[in-house]
Amino acid sequence: MFRQVLRWVLGERLKTSQLAEQKFNVFWGMAILSSDAISSVAYAVEEILWILIPVIGMASYSWMLKIAGAIILLLFILTFSYRQTVDAYPSGGGAYIVAKSNLSNLFGLIAGASLAVDYTLTVAVSITSGTAAITSAFPFLFPYRVIISVAIIILLTVGNLRGIRDSSRMFGIPTYAFIFSIIALIIAGFIKHTYGDYRDIPTPSQSHVAFGTQAVTLFLLLRAFSSGCAAVTGVEAISNGIPNFKPPSQRNAKIAYLLLASAVFVTFGGVAYLANIYHAVPNPHQTVIAQIATDVFGKGPMFYLIQVTTTIILAMAANTAFADFPILLSLIAQDGYAPRQLALRGHRLNFSNGILTLSTLAIILVIVFKGDTHLLIPLYAVGVFTSFTLSQTGMFVHWLRLKEKGWLHRAVINGLGAFITSITVGIIAVTKFPEGAWIVVLVVPTVVLIMLKIRRHYDSVAEQLNIPNETLPYLNFNPHYSHFVIVPIDSLNAMVVKALRYAKSLTPNVEAFHVETREGEADKLRRKWALLNTDIPLIIKQSPYREVVGPLINYIDSEEHASQPGDVITVLLPQFFVPKWWQMALHNNTSIFIANALFHKRNVVVSVLPFYLEDMPALKRKWHEEKNKEKQSRS
Amino acid sequence: MFRQVLRWVLGERLKTSQLAEQKFNVFWGMAILSSDAISSVAYAVEEILWILIPVIGMASYSWMLKIAGAIILLLFILTFSYRQTVDAYPSGGGAYIVAKSNLSNLFGLIAGASLAVDYTLTVAVSITSGTAAITSAFPFLFPYRVIISVAIIILLTVGNLRGIRDSSRMFGIPTYAFIFSIIALIIAGFIKHTYGDYRDIPTPSQSHVAFGTQAVTLFLLLRAFSSGCAAVTGVEAISNGIPNFKPPSQRNAKIAYLLLASAVFVTFGGVAYLANIYHAVPNPHQTVIAQIATDVFGKGPMFYLIQVTTTIILAMAANTAFADFPILLSLIAQDGYAPRQLALRGHRLNFSNGILTLSTLAIILVIVFKGDTHLLIPLYAVGVFTSFTLSQTGMFVHWLRLKEKGWLHRAVINGLGAFITSITVGIIAVTKFPEGAWIVVLVVPTVVLIMLKIRRHYDSVAEQLNIPNETLPYLNFNPHYSHFVIVPIDSLNAMVVKALRYAKSLTPNVEAFHVETREGEADKLRRKWALLNTDIPLIIKQSPYREVVGPLINYIDSEEHASQPGDVITVLLPQFFVPKWWQMALHNNTSIFIANALFHKRNVVVSVLPFYLEDMPALKRKWHEEKNKEKQSRS
Repeated sequence: MFRQVLRWVLGERLKTSQLAEQKFNVFWGMAILSSDAISSVAYAVEEILWILIPVIGMASYSWMLKIAGAIILLLFILTFSYRQTVDAYPSGGGAYIVAKSNLSNLFGLIAGASLAVDYTLTVAVSITSGTAAITSAFPFLFPYRVIISVAIIILLTVGNLRGIRDSSRMFGIPTYAFIFSIIALIIAGFIKHTYGDYRDIPTPSQSHVAFGTQAVTLFLLLRAFSSGCAAVTGVEAISNGIPNFKPPSQRNAKIAYLLLASAVFVTFGGVAYLANIYHAVPNPHQTVIAQIATDVFGKGPMFYLIQVTTTIILAMAANTAFADFPILLSLIAQDGYAPRQLALRGHRLNFSNGILTLSTLAIILVIVFKGDTHLLIPLYAVGVFTSFTLSQTGMFVHWLRLKEKGWLHRAVINGLGAFITSITVGIIAVTKFPEGAWIVVLVVPTVVLIMLKIRRHYDSVAEQLNIPNETLPYLNFNPHYSHFVIVPIDSLNAMVVKALRYAKSLTPNVEAFHVETREGEADKLRRKWALLNTDIPLIIKQSPYREVVGPLINYIDSEEHASQPGDVITVLLPQFFVPKWWQMALHNNTSIFIANALFHKRNVVVSVLPFYLEDMPALKRKWHEEKNKEKQSRS
Repeated sequence: MFRQVLRWVLGERLKTSQLAEQKFNVFWGMAILSSDAISSVAYAVEEILWILIPVIGMASYSWMLKIAGAIILLLFILTFSYRQTVDAYPSGGGAYIVAKSNLSNLFGLIAGASLAVDYTLTVAVSITSGTAAITSAFPFLFPYRVIISVAIIILLTVGNLRGIRDSSRMFGIPTYAFIFSIIALIIAGFIKHTYGDYRDIPTPSQSHVAFGTQAVTLFLLLRAFSSGCAAVTGVEAISNGIPNFKPPSQRNAKIAYLLLASAVFVTFGGVAYLANIYHAVPNPHQTVIAQIATDVFGKGPMFYLIQVTTTIILAMAANTAFADFPILLSLIAQDGYAPRQLALRGHRLNFSNGILTLSTLAIILVIVFKGDTHLLIPLYAVGVFTSFTLSQTGMFVHWLRLKEKGWLHRAVINGLGAFITSITVGIIAVTKFPEGAWIVVLVVPTVVLIMLKIRRHYDSVAEQLNIPNETLPYLNFNPHYSHFVIVPIDSLNAMVVKALRYAKSLTPNVEAFHVETREGEADKLRRKWALLNTDIPLIIKQSPYREVVGPLINYIDSEEHASQPGDVITVLLPQFFVPKWWQMALHNNTSIFIANALFHKRNVVVSVLPFYLEDMPALKRKWHEEKNKEKQSRS
């Protein structure tokens, strides 16, 4: 039954051999791998303004442009450094692998933990921001934003449990739809502003802009910069996904990087420019892009198109996290730093446990932060840039170690990347610390510690289970101990007889064991036992507290019992199974309790002997006979 | 840990031998057994007015008195019939026993089911009505009435799980406290009204009384009567509790009955009289008694005293249900008509499962009916009077069958009782049907059907397990089948070796079984196995769907397997246990899944062999060594 439901929700299970990868050309490959990077455009500019406007008012716009410029520069540096990762790790070089193989396991784990945090936040941020796009289009949905976000996450979870291949061309379309609708917005916006009759009528939300007129401080600009950095998150994706490209996959991946960089450059730069000329002012009810779209197109089809494409690409971005997070965890799990279950392919060949972990965490984040992107952003970039820094540093070390042709120039590029990103981490951690970065600064090390503890545990298990090959030939399988079977019974019935017979087939040392909970309750059993023609002894113990396991264990441990230390004792539990589940509920299935209790007793093997019962038609007859008897007894 | 909490909540567990009964004289015995009957006075009059006033306005009061009279008459008839039950069943004759032994099992079950329903409603009605007394005293609590009711029920549940002996003198005090405070109210009320300056100033709630001025219909009066019948619920209690009286217990019980009757007569009659002269008008915010108390004493100490005693006696009434319901169910369970667990004495010697069942049902009722006594009343009396009717009829038959001295006159009394009560059932069922009686009319037969189904199941089990004594001597315990052990393994390690050794101690027919989920995944195992010096074969099966149980079962069933039909196969599952729970979570404990899956396979015995692992200090060392290795590998 349950299996049926499972299959209906998750679809038919897949064979291991069905595991396959689709290959893509530059055009689609880039679109599929970059939704995360490009979608950030949807909120990056807005986040910069959130910081500036309340403080320096109208002055914000020119500064915003400068900051956007800096971020774009950062983007290009990252692009070129990652193009080198593509050269060095043709099979895909995530921060975890690069850091682990070039720096050390510990740095690998730090990168891994930061990435894990980053992916979780990607889901939370993208989905809440996508919901913001929806509520900007349909304001009456604003009160339900948390529910909407959670619903979308659950949808993605089910989808990914079913095994959406993120390597499906379909997933490239939203990226281009978004890019082109944004470009359309930019062009139309530019034209309308230059030749059109557009005059900047301050919207109510703009009214307070006038007030913020304090001095511009470096700290303020750095805070704004940190917020803007959200725009470059996700650029690592391509370097992880090199195998998804048609050969020559490395060359294609590198071209894809240039494509990505220019796409972000145009869209991010363009939106920044528009926000500037249209003086958009962020407010929780309408996203900046929505404001501009309204100014440019009015609330017409184009406006709604932009909101829809934004929502979809943001959902795609979250989806890439759903694709990468479980793979990352499975890699870590394979190295023994995370629970093994995360390395198991489920029902549909995906790492279902990883998917569920991610969605749970993301949902918690969304709820805790009331579905507000703006509150989540401060946590976001720390993890991303930590992993950037570590992978860049890794690459830097890589070149220094190998000293291949052109190593120096390559080392310089990655060194620069590492340098810039590390500075950025610092800036973000400091400027965003009070607003929430502290959470990440606490979480990442904690996760790393847990990972080390887990690995330690697995190692201890391995050490205790391991048998060196050289000793294998000398293992002796003939037991040097004697073996006892104890059969707990509450009455003498067909099931018990079957059990005793089975016990006899194991060893001559069989004992029946009964617990007497009421004075004289066992007498009937004693009488019946006396009639038996067998050497099996019946042991009866009193239990004033009506419990069975205690007396049993006491008996086993007592002198009274013939077994020597080191002997193995099997407790054989006869358990009957009835056809219907509700019938099972009609029996106090003691044996299950006994079993669970005994698992914690050493040198005791717990055996369950099933005895199947039917619903007998013969019964109805019996039932009526009895009814008649009653009648007679009364008349 | 859990056990600790349990003990803290429930108190130390008790020995079976600690089961004992305290005996009481007439005075206390009556008080302890009658809180249910007497407490109904708290709402009976009010319920009559609820029916009349909206329809016939001021005319209600005189009619109310007549109806009250009829109910008191009914009470006396019941008293005398039950005094005879006391004669006939010295050890306590509940409706279930009387009906079962004199009419038939089926009627017994109907009586039992009605009683069960009745007890559940007693809790719901008493507690909600008690809460009403509280909220009448402290109106600001009115919005929280449902929570308050539920809280009280939970309190009673815990109390009863701890094992409040309802046979404790303490429980008699509230009854007298209530009786005397009501008598005080009556006297003071009478005096104030006759000699005092009291003029009936219509309260706002009375304003609408003027409006209801339609004709008096018989149906209306019968509806009012049905509501009032709530007053006589609980009179059966004494006849159940005869053993609680000091010898001569029967005589004492019979005297107690007269005491009870007069107590109800005085209090119920008195309250009816006061409601009449003070023109109390029921409203959800203040109970009738509270209104009268306000008129008579004003909101002074006496007013609050009355509210408090009312609440307490109502809680006591609910408590008697908590005492009787589990006993009733345990009787039914002992006869095999209810799940056996209900006949088991828990931790504290009481029938904990019955207690929990009752409180769950009661809480559901309270929540569904929004904690409003008035909405619950229509369901109440049907069950009570059904059980009255059946036990009276039972007694009637009893006398006819035995034809003891004076049987005729006795038969007449019980016959009359049966006749009156059966008519009352009819009246209640018809007049209250649309208001909720229909629920009970549906539930009781359903419960009876379920009970029959349960008995049928237990009979079938018994029939299949039973071995007639005469065949016992000829049972053969030497198995006539051969025995195989299969050990599922995923690698060759110390635990597996222990398991194989154990298997060998059971039978020579041992096989190791491995499932290969990925191409070539098993090669390493094959190589290691080749090194072993043993005759145990290693069977390896492919499983494209990464599942283990399926291939195992297929293998067992296949020709390939040496076993003959009828042979027993033991699947031995090595399972390691790690010291900490969180460590357990780090392993995909396949063996548990396998075990559960195999329970549904016939002729397969499932054995779990525990293997204990430690946290080794040795490990830290290993850990560091490895770290050093890494460093070297990189330099």
